[in-house]
Amino acid sequence: MHSVDPTTEQMIRAVLAYAENRLRLDPVPLDGCNPDPAALDAALTGLLGDEPHNPDQVLGAYTSVVAPAVISADSPRFLGFIPAAPTKASLLFDMLISCASIQGISWLEAAGAIRAENLVLRLIADRAGLPAAAGGCFVSGGSAANLSALVVAWEVAKRKAAPAGRPARRFRAVVSADAHSSIVNTLRILEMDALTVTTADHRLTGAALRAAIEADGDPASLAVVVATAGTTNAGIIDDLAGAAEVAREHGLWFHVDGAYGGAGLFAPSVRLAYDGIEHADSFILDPHKWLFAPFDCAALLYRDPALARSVHKQNASYLDVIHDDPAEWNPTDYAYHLTRRARDEMVSRGSRL
Amino acid sequence: MHSVDPTTEQMIRAVLAYAENRLRLDPVPLDGCNPDPAALDAALTGLLGDEPHNPDQVLGAYTSVVAPAVISADSPRFLGFIPAAPTKASLLFDMLISCASIQGISWLEAAGAIRAENLVLRLIADRAGLPAAAGGCFVSGGSAANLSALVVAWEVAKRKAAPAGRPARRFRAVVSADAHSSIVNTLRILEMDALTVTTADHRLTGAALRAAIEADGDPASLAVVVATAGTTNAGIIDDLAGAAEVAREHGLWFHVDGAYGGAGLFAPSVRLAYDGIEHADSFILDPHKWLFAPFDCAALLYRDPALARSVHKQNASYLDVIHDDPAEWNPTDYAYHLTRRARDEMVSRGSRL
Repeated sequence: MHSVDPTTEQMIRAVLAYAENRLRLDPVPLDGCNPDPAALDAALTGLLGDEPHNPDQVLGAYTSVVAPAVISADSPRFLGFIPAAPTKASLLFDMLISCASIQGISWLEAAGAIRAENLVLRLIADRAGLPAAAGGCFVSGGSAANLSALVVAWEVAKRKAAPAGRPARRFRAVVSADAHSSIVNTLRILEMDALTVTTADHRLTGAALRAAIEADGDPASLAVVVATAGTTNAGIIDDLAGAAEVAREHGLWFHVDGAYGGAGLFAPSVRLAYDGIEHADSFILDPHKWLFAPFDCAALLYRDPALARSVHKQNASYLDVIHDDPAEWNPTDYAYHLTRRARDEMVSRGSRL
Repeated sequence: MHSVDPTTEQMIRAVLAYAENRLRLDPVPLDGCNPDPAALDAALTGLLGDEPHNPDQVLGAYTSVVAPAVISADSPRFLGFIPAAPTKASLLFDMLISCASIQGISWLEAAGAIRAENLVLRLIADRAGLPAAAGGCFVSGGSAANLSALVVAWEVAKRKAAPAGRPARRFRAVVSADAHSSIVNTLRILEMDALTVTTADHRLTGAALRAAIEADGDPASLAVVVATAGTTNAGIIDDLAGAAEVAREHGLWFHVDGAYGGAGLFAPSVRLAYDGIEHADSFILDPHKWLFAPFDCAALLYRDPALARSVHKQNASYLDVIHDDPAEWNPTDYAYHLTRRARDEMVSRGSRL
């Protein structure tokens, strides 16, 4: 398994030759439209069985049937859905992560990858104006990131309400009607009801938020304000400064979902629209959307990562060894996951091509 | 960004040459031990700034500083922690996923990759003896898979208790004292208390489970039985047949966490130890452990995927297009995620090198 025999050699040559050609495509075809399920099955079903297959046969099925039946996010013709537009540099450096199965679980196992990731998280935190102590990790996407952030917000509210034990009450979240669908699903898991704020122009403002809270019959049950930057349908960036102020007045966690639009922080022309984001207790941004990274990559940042760690850290004898030194940063402690592939953001950001 | 200019050419040559050498290493060095944080910082901090860097400089930092500071899961000397042992074939085919940023979100976007993944899920389901209708998706690891499965179990219990609306009661889970740490964290998020069953030899049996439930003061609050195959510390496979029988008697969801040991299903010599797994309502297995896949890859299977879909599917106008045809399989509907990178399991399984 670990040795390089003639079959491995054959496979290395064939896969790298294909990759080289794929990377040189100019333009990359869009692919993926209306694949024939029967043709897919005919090409694939024979490949899994008791007998191994020649790698060329497997690669042939991949290149002629599997790959063309997936929309190419790196095609200049990929204009649908939420943009994903990986650069050639990001594809290449992501191949390096794959080439060595680079992990990003714990500092003990993967210090190099984690330090590289953390520099990119720091870069994002700086653009958002988050304090020097802010930190977090990369996860697969906005849904996983929103869940992880809101679990922390919810746990913090529970601890405040009942420092020892479980509070009798349920908590609620203030959200805009345009919040992402993953927020809705997360709230269901946490059994939090939503105080939904609707505005005429779909933009959550501090004034609308304040009015909704003041008109609410049970404001003490509110735990978190979720603002969006920007909304999935229209890219609307909520009034983050106003929302942050109201959240602070009421002692609520302030979460900003910038999965889609957060990359605008890097554009001086629109940076003003994000004012107030520096007050976020948690903030997410998907580099696989507008920061030109390949699938999948969401940045999850906390103002106070120690709080997040106290919620998400898994405790077990087999994990003690990665927690011996509390100064070591373990991405696994900051979201709902344990094993994780490293992300290539550092290297592709560094070259920025 | 989409074009192939001389810098892109330079980068393609440099990265592929490095990859070729890395793949030919025999043996792959273990790496990763005691990296010097100061050296890491010195090599990396200058790379992120307003000016782009020459790709060779970035690649140099990766190859000389980042990669050596990560333990190589593909080294024959990697004997610590839970085994991860990617084959050369799996590394190569994972590079293909990266090369084209192959996604696995929805059938509409990624039919080829999803069909390939589903054939591998089917292979695993067959080995477990799950029915033809079983299905699911790949997620990052056992923690994400356990959370997603238990959310379904919990939601199903809630629906049974209160078909319309929210039940007044909280639900509980029966777990072994040796269940994985992610089970504990998931139960905290779902506000489920654990009825913890302890046995002298750390193996959960049907008899111990039955005795614990019969001695319990509130058996009606139980929603799920979590069995393990095998435990993280000792690889112990619970008495799945006995546990399944007790779960059925009490109308409880039966979850089997085979993240670590589930791959033993493929070994005829120990297949007998898994008897009863065919009754699982949900079952997880990490191919990045003993099925020789690279990080990260966990298989999540449900006996009744339509139930899981009714819990995890996200609803929003921007997602309607992927849900137009209910016959199309969207991995995004079966776990707590939306965006996801495809896994290479099909192709590396097909070649089995």
